Amino acid sequence: MTDTLYTGISQLVTPRPGPQRGRAMRELTVLEDAALLVSGGLIRWVGRRVEAPATAHERDLGGVAVVPGLVDPHTHAVWAGDRLSDFEARVEGVPYEILLARGGGIRSTMRATAAASRDELVALARPRLQALRDSGATTVEVKSGYGLDFEAELRMLEAVRELALEFTLLPTLLIHVPPSEGRAEYVRAVCEDLIPEVAQENLAQAVDVFCEKEAFSVAETQTILEAAKAHGLATKLHADQFHAVGGVELACELGSLSVDHLEASGPAQIAALAASTTVATVLPGVTLHLGLPAAPARALVDAGACVAVGTDLNPGSSPVFSSQLALALAVRLCGLTPAEALTACTVNAAAGLGLTDRGALVPGARADFLALHSADWRDLAYTLGASPVRGVYVSGQPVKEVKL
Amino acid sequence: MTDTLYTGISQLVTPRPGPQRGRAMRELTVLEDAALLVSGGLIRWVGRRVEAPATAHERDLGGVAVVPGLVDPHTHAVWAGDRLSDFEARVEGVPYEILLARGGGIRSTMRATAAASRDELVALARPRLQALRDSGATTVEVKSGYGLDFEAELRMLEAVRELALEFTLLPTLLIHVPPSEGRAEYVRAVCEDLIPEVAQENLAQAVDVFCEKEAFSVAETQTILEAAKAHGLATKLHADQFHAVGGVELACELGSLSVDHLEASGPAQIAALAASTTVATVLPGVTLHLGLPAAPARALVDAGACVAVGTDLNPGSSPVFSSQLALALAVRLCGLTPAEALTACTVNAAAGLGLTDRGALVPGARADFLALHSADWRDLAYTLGASPVRGVYVSGQPVKEVKL
Ligand SMILES: [Zn+2]
Ligand SMILES: [Zn+2]
Repeated sequence: MTDTLYTGISQLVTPRPGPQRGRAMRELTVLEDAALLVSGGLIRWVGRRVEAPATAHERDLGGVAVVPGLVDPHTHAVWAGDRLSDFEARVEGVPYEILLARGGGIRSTMRATAAASRDELVALARPRLQALRDSGATTVEVKSGYGLDFEAELRMLEAVRELALEFTLLPTLLIHVPPSEGRAEYVRAVCEDLIPEVAQENLAQAVDVFCEKEAFSVAETQTILEAAKAHGLATKLHADQFHAVGGVELACELGSLSVDHLEASGPAQIAALAASTTVATVLPGVTLHLGLPAAPARALVDAGACVAVGTDLNPGSSPVFSSQLALALAVRLCGLTPAEALTACTVNAAAGLGLTDRGALVPGARADFLALHSADWRDLAYTLGASPVRGVYVSGQPVKEVKL
Repeated sequence: MTDTLYTGISQLVTPRPGPQRGRAMRELTVLEDAALLVSGGLIRWVGRRVEAPATAHERDLGGVAVVPGLVDPHTHAVWAGDRLSDFEARVEGVPYEILLARGGGIRSTMRATAAASRDELVALARPRLQALRDSGATTVEVKSGYGLDFEAELRMLEAVRELALEFTLLPTLLIHVPPSEGRAEYVRAVCEDLIPEVAQENLAQAVDVFCEKEAFSVAETQTILEAAKAHGLATKLHADQFHAVGGVELACELGSLSVDHLEASGPAQIAALAASTTVATVLPGVTLHLGLPAAPARALVDAGACVAVGTDLNPGSSPVFSSQLALALAVRLCGLTPAEALTACTVNAAAGLGLTDRGALVPGARADFLALHSADWRDLAYTLGASPVRGVYVSGQPVKEVKL
């Protein structure tokens, strides 16, 4: 086991480990002229360069800022087909109902995804995950949810399992779109057939439900998430995207890892999240792509909630292939400060996936970190349209290093 | 002079040559299974692959979409110092007046830029221009305007001249910030000393003035731009960014190449632009970065104006290092369709620089084009946070080619 001492770090910047709430989200540790000792994929020591332990193997990063690897806690990175005609028609003013009638919308993604083989899904998702990693994401959650039937759902999760040989992924079973008929039967089958099989095969770490007027009701969501818990799986929700129908309150009550979207959340939901351990995950890419209102991330932080940020990478509502851009958009569109956005995209995003071993640069943590092009870490939040990330290190190993 | 036939083009997509106004901005030509013949840096032939002339040298692009190289008609890519503390303070809610009192704001960029040598300015700007080119910009306008005095202004333009050995650049002399005292004398010196010297040394192709309540008045702007015209230089304006004080009307009356910003333009300004040959350039990066209202690009197109899009790359109000992102933002924030945005970023942006030899893929035009990763050109407007551009070709030569 070789020790490597990373030096040439102008600033080593990290939130404190574990989920951070409210004002603590701003409290970063900034070490100047720092060094980072890695061994066996873990951080062994962090401190001032001049105080670093002697090591045989040293790597000079060239005088740049180092931050934790980003964690993307919400993606739908596996899909087939495309939504380019939907995109074009929508910006030309064609109503969504007409798109649906033309065979567009989410159902077109479901048809194409269900028709694709596992190998095809893997090949389609690989460059997307590569783009996320190049942008700085060292851990990425990936959801199912475009399967027309259980077989296709399982195929999506098998594709994620295969991709997890190349990337650090956390798979989530997403119960996304209710059938047009036989809802009660469908929910029962999800609970009695799909969830047990997914748990048995270890194909997902969590179950997520799209709780919304047009999707699953609070009662249906509760039934599904209780079944998930009974099978030892963690729970998450898509809630309050369009209407605050009670999904946030349910998430807090169930102790879900996270509740995501929150564009329609009001004071009651903000208060519920502030009083809970559930992570509030906001998705500013949707705000930019669809031009809809942003989630009240500023109010959530001010109320004391634990806020995370994700890309929501998906073909219909967030074609955002960069976790760094999600971080940068959280500052512009959600009113987070750069420090809050960094915390939201690292330790808090990790907490939304049930992980406490990453997201902060402290001894014992996974050595997942980024070297920037800049000596000032704030370029990570500032830069739009180019990558401020020069190097990406996973378990202490470079997976991206831009040659200058 | 070798002929090269580019093949493997799923779609060759181009606006018609020359500035396009109103509805014509949507009218792209899309050739499927196409080929492109290049010789001596120019396009010699465009058509269906099966009809291509026989050539010795063929390059297969792999079955992807090809579009014209983007033209970025508005950047301030040469600066020294940074505005990271301003950025952080602004999102933390510190008012701009306090930032100024702390020594921040545009004056800090002017101090740092004036203190930098020409070589330093070149070294700082090079990676920014590289990022723009990687994003698909094959021609880029660069303004002066951060000089505290004429010497520093000339140094900025000399830096652009040096960078023009590596990139295709059009330099503009920008009269940006009035002195706190001696305005009349300053305007006279601009007209009698600076503009003649810039024209004599061929250091700029156009003169631009920031016409705004807090900057130069309409009368001052007119005086400066008349001097520019008298010395054979084209004219441009920054106008209607915060207040519609008459800059747009002046631009139309003077026959300026373009008038840029337009966030505060109303029906009168839109009508004036629709009736003129002046290009209306919008800058959606500013909208995203500062959270201010967008320019009425949709209304301008609907009224029949010729609309262009630029990054406005600058450290204070638009740290957007990608012309592709500017195009993608014009769709999300300004309501342009993908086709209109492509026209805005190619032939119309070229027209805003007085250029008619590029921006459309037609025989006789410069062979500046992009090969995408995708077989569908709309990915250029759709993709956020990753580059949809696989290859960038300037005068028929590759300057970027992503290896797969
Ligand atoms: Zn989602
Ligand atoms: Zn400008």
